[in-house]
Amino acid sequence: MKAIRLHKYEELPKLEEVAEPKITGPHDVIVRIGGAGLCRTDLHIIEGQWAEKSGVTLPYTLGHENAGWVQEIGSAVSNVAVGDTVIVHPLITCGLCRACRAGNDMHCSNSAFPGISVDGGMANFLKTSARAVVKLDPSLAPKDIAALADAGLTAYHAVKKAATQLYPGTKVVVIGAGGLGHIGVQCLKALTPAEIIVVDRSPAALELTRSWGADHTVVADGSQVAKVKDLTDGQGAEAVIDFVGEQGAEHDAVGMLRRAGSHYIIGYGGKLDVPTIDIISTEINFIGNLVGTYNDLAELMTLTAQGKVKLHTAVYPLDAATDAINDLDSGKLRGRGILVP
Amino acid sequence: MKAIRLHKYEELPKLEEVAEPKITGPHDVIVRIGGAGLCRTDLHIIEGQWAEKSGVTLPYTLGHENAGWVQEIGSAVSNVAVGDTVIVHPLITCGLCRACRAGNDMHCSNSAFPGISVDGGMANFLKTSARAVVKLDPSLAPKDIAALADAGLTAYHAVKKAATQLYPGTKVVVIGAGGLGHIGVQCLKALTPAEIIVVDRSPAALELTRSWGADHTVVADGSQVAKVKDLTDGQGAEAVIDFVGEQGAEHDAVGMLRRAGSHYIIGYGGKLDVPTIDIISTEINFIGNLVGTYNDLAELMTLTAQGKVKLHTAVYPLDAATDAINDLDSGKLRGRGILVP
Amino acid sequence: MKAIRLHKYEELPKLEEVAEPKITGPHDVIVRIGGAGLCRTDLHIIEGQWAEKSGVTLPYTLGHENAGWVQEIGSAVSNVAVGDTVIVHPLITCGLCRACRAGNDMHCSNSAFPGISVDGGMANFLKTSARAVVKLDPSLAPKDIAALADAGLTAYHAVKKAATQLYPGTKVVVIGAGGLGHIGVQCLKALTPAEIIVVDRSPAALELTRSWGADHTVVADGSQVAKVKDLTDGQGAEAVIDFVGEQGAEHDAVGMLRRAGSHYIIGYGGKLDVPTIDIISTEINFIGNLVGTYNDLAELMTLTAQGKVKLHTAVYPLDAATDAINDLDSGKLRGRGILVP
Amino acid sequence: MKAIRLHKYEELPKLEEVAEPKITGPHDVIVRIGGAGLCRTDLHIIEGQWAEKSGVTLPYTLGHENAGWVQEIGSAVSNVAVGDTVIVHPLITCGLCRACRAGNDMHCSNSAFPGISVDGGMANFLKTSARAVVKLDPSLAPKDIAALADAGLTAYHAVKKAATQLYPGTKVVVIGAGGLGHIGVQCLKALTPAEIIVVDRSPAALELTRSWGADHTVVADGSQVAKVKDLTDGQGAEAVIDFVGEQGAEHDAVGMLRRAGSHYIIGYGGKLDVPTIDIISTEINFIGNLVGTYNDLAELMTLTAQGKVKLHTAVYPLDAATDAINDLDSGKLRGRGILVP
Repeated sequence: MKAIRLHKYEELPKLEEVAEPKITGPHDVIVRIGGAGLCRTDLHIIEGQWAEKSGVTLPYTLGHENAGWVQEIGSAVSNVAVGDTVIVHPLITCGLCRACRAGNDMHCSNSAFPGISVDGGMANFLKTSARAVVKLDPSLAPKDIAALADAGLTAYHAVKKAATQLYPGTKVVVIGAGGLGHIGVQCLKALTPAEIIVVDRSPAALELTRSWGADHTVVADGSQVAKVKDLTDGQGAEAVIDFVGEQGAEHDAVGMLRRAGSHYIIGYGGKLDVPTIDIISTEINFIGNLVGTYNDLAELMTLTAQGKVKLHTAVYPLDAATDAINDLDSGKLRGRGILVP
Repeated sequence: MKAIRLHKYEELPKLEEVAEPKITGPHDVIVRIGGAGLCRTDLHIIEGQWAEKSGVTLPYTLGHENAGWVQEIGSAVSNVAVGDTVIVHPLITCGLCRACRAGNDMHCSNSAFPGISVDGGMANFLKTSARAVVKLDPSLAPKDIAALADAGLTAYHAVKKAATQLYPGTKVVVIGAGGLGHIGVQCLKALTPAEIIVVDRSPAALELTRSWGADHTVVADGSQVAKVKDLTDGQGAEAVIDFVGEQGAEHDAVGMLRRAGSHYIIGYGGKLDVPTIDIISTEINFIGNLVGTYNDLAELMTLTAQGKVKLHTAVYPLDAATDAINDLDSGKLRGRGILVP
Repeated sequence: MKAIRLHKYEELPKLEEVAEPKITGPHDVIVRIGGAGLCRTDLHIIEGQWAEKSGVTLPYTLGHENAGWVQEIGSAVSNVAVGDTVIVHPLITCGLCRACRAGNDMHCSNSAFPGISVDGGMANFLKTSARAVVKLDPSLAPKDIAALADAGLTAYHAVKKAATQLYPGTKVVVIGAGGLGHIGVQCLKALTPAEIIVVDRSPAALELTRSWGADHTVVADGSQVAKVKDLTDGQGAEAVIDFVGEQGAEHDAVGMLRRAGSHYIIGYGGKLDVPTIDIISTEINFIGNLVGTYNDLAELMTLTAQGKVKLHTAVYPLDAATDAINDLDSGKLRGRGILVP
Repeated sequence: MKAIRLHKYEELPKLEEVAEPKITGPHDVIVRIGGAGLCRTDLHIIEGQWAEKSGVTLPYTLGHENAGWVQEIGSAVSNVAVGDTVIVHPLITCGLCRACRAGNDMHCSNSAFPGISVDGGMANFLKTSARAVVKLDPSLAPKDIAALADAGLTAYHAVKKAATQLYPGTKVVVIGAGGLGHIGVQCLKALTPAEIIVVDRSPAALELTRSWGADHTVVADGSQVAKVKDLTDGQGAEAVIDFVGEQGAEHDAVGMLRRAGSHYIIGYGGKLDVPTIDIISTEINFIGNLVGTYNDLAELMTLTAQGKVKLHTAVYPLDAATDAINDLDSGKLRGRGILVP
């Protein structure tokens, strides 16, 4: 089969022919890929940011945001059947460790992360496990919802945490009006009564967020912290959801926080850099956010089925993966890039 | 009356004669000081770290950790009477704003902070408000419990937050075996079933923590992060409560965290400095901690009354305030320093 | 001034001339009533259901759901000024007890409840306290929002508790499409992503709930439990919010619960009557609900200002109070009855 | 093998010879029983209380509280090996449904309950699943800890819920000083700073509870509600944990509740019977409690390993099961009855 494989850090991955995955364990599920999302994390992987953390052996196949149809199942798989339409939770988890049993399966102590630590889904087929597949209505086209598997799931997970402190009258700042921000704003609208302020460098991207539910938009032109303060009676916002996490956004976020507010960190690349006196004197919090749980993904698919979350995607054939990567890197890609084999 | 007043940053405060405070509002309460605690924050105030944040006008009287007896009350005060023994919550709060009504009175939007932003309790008398005084059993000596008003309250407040994630089998690291750590360990013992690991530079201070309830002690000799990892099966601890927050402790704490763990920041002076990728890839949290609420203080006084929290204090006459300050600064002071007028 | 006063249980209250209330304490606030809501609780008071619980001495003035304009203030009142438009939280609370400080002011240990335990607002003037008044935009007409002070507040308070367990994909049943149900459905829509099923005897009332946000309606014709089961895949709903609490609704609610579901009890008059084996074998919960907190009321006023909650009211002059009472009792009153002096 | 099997409701079960269970699925685990606890639920099963709920086909083997050693495992079992000492979580769960993934495995939508709905552990061997076995230190004797698998787990689960509202200064009532109460009191001591009041009919049983950590004991001689009120300043307790749930305890519990308090129902047999006006006017709650989760069981085993929870047991040979049942029914059994094959 065809696959997009990374051979060396700081070099673009290549399309090549590799062997198809095979069922080897009783819980294995092989998915015929209908759509594989392209993510800023793929850029960070290529840059080598994940080299040490993932410990992956090159070359390997990228793609951690997948949906498709069940192609083959292991002997103990009972929750899906061949032919089912599925979206694939990014982690293969054990179901036996404390984290899996506590509803924190993204902290499974025996997990694998296809596309990060093992072969991913930018290919014709992906091998995952019974615990990772969410069965969908057959009317859904995998390429239309694949991006929810990771980008959407991560945004939803962070919003769900923030929602616990967002009551009527509170304000939430979303930094970044790209793929994750897009879904984040819609999830905030669906889950909370908070007023939503979106911050981005692109006035065009901000304009779009109005239709997703943004109440206020702020161009990040250097005055963004002051503008957010103005929109929040000089107090700052109860929650800042930072989908950028680099290039200054991570510092802006701190300045936009109200006393006792929380900075939800999702984007990465930069550094948190705050004097401890500033943290204690205002009692602010910094909350890390990884991908969501399987149940989070199921909830997000419910919101999608209810029409509360919609995706903007840009489809590329699998062969054009490097075009998609270049478009993402250069800021040309609008919506989420999806590779279709 | 006598008072210890700060005239200039980076200079020691002076003992001098000032006018006694007077009742001017219906909720005012004047407390005859029985004990005023000396705190590392007093050193930080003298250094000027709080100058901008507090906006206080020099000279003013230090002392934000006070207990004594009610001397005089305003016309609308009904919860205490002249002669009552009281411990004084450090903030004067309004009782009308959202924060006060939500149980977060330390975020009162109309508060004053005697000893930080207005005249404090290192004096014969302190002016505070009806909402700030906790009535105590007359058998209690103010000098014995004054340090609970701020050091104890802050430690208790942080422990109470951490307790929500400390179930049987979890481990919690306490960095700093000084005044706050002392109370923090006892509060952890009273409130949680977690195993307690205490980290400090002083083997003697660590030895003492065994009697307060520490299960493990680790000398901070450069290998402290590795040792904590060893004590936690290589995983790190679910919670790290950092009572130091400077001189490297704030970095150690991050290294001691388990996936999804939380770093509770109480001590200050240093800088949090963490790549955002490290925060998101392990989904860790940083939780700021200010002083606790009035209800927190009442709960802490209950633990004290039940014999679950005990204080080690070193008493100095008010006139010897600079000796106490020098002893604290040079590390000679064991237990909490208390000034008695 | 004129007032609607209850002289004897099981007899209609009378309109009569009484002395105006006077400022006696520093926190007193006298409100000129612009609207006083009529509530099913007023019927229950007249029936004598509250006689023992309230301990009120007859005769007294009814009316626990009030809005108007500040007429006069005590010496220590700083949060409102004469002439301000205000909605009145139903309880006069102390601000000093643990409950008030913990954000549970409806459990204040020194409270008074005008209209229940002391003179209420079905009159020209009401005496309340500084802590009870929420300042509103002067453009708001008190008669249009008075019903939010108790009916709305109670519905909001219950919905806010239920919201914590209502994630995408869950279903919530609202029993009762009257005054409280009306607001409850709108609050559910504003605060949660749950699907809303409304149950009522009146097809006309149900029809109205569609416009408030109901996703499904069920006529209570004897088959309502079975119909709710059908709408929930035979499992029952995660939450049942029972605004009726009598005449069988309180039993229906139990039958509509999913495993681990919660029955929120707001309406009253009937009896909860459940074998303990049914409670433990499915691990269901029964959650009592009183009026909400001051902060709840402020949040509800925010939702109203945002246009997310709207009220249907039927205005009666104060002199026609007995007409309003008879209309409510006989089921003729649509929306919430408001008495205007 | 030998097994204690129920042939007819309202008749004692019989010891008889049956075939040993066999591995049929990849996750099956067969445990050689070292101890099977006898529970009041076994009496209720014999009485027929569970007939309809469990839907079990008679005859079948009783015993839902089991520990022993792994005898044989299915092809996909990796978390335990033959010979391991294990305690058996009472439910066989799927690991795939929302409840299992959310940390509520006792609400698994595809579960089996050995001893309730399929053959249990009062026998030489029990068939369970990989997800149900908690591996223990080989030094532990299964007969000494078997009773923690259900009685202990249920008590722990309820205490863990109650613990969230038990801060210093609160009081908790435990009704029933038998097998569950015994463990409940120790868990309360380990997890909370609350004062513990134990209520029971037997002065001897109450005397024992002092050594487990009870702060106050109250003989249930008719004055128990009044005595609890006296011990709680006339207010009642924040939480009442009712391990009896019948013969009047379920009514006493309601009378012992403070405003906003919660009645945790664990014991059963009686009926909850409360006017809705009493529930709403004080805003009290009734919380159902089933057995705990797998993680709860692991936490309880940690407390046991730490010496914080100890069991009193009375061992009977499996052949003497009917003696044990008679002793339990007549109140002669002290501690938890354990059958050893």
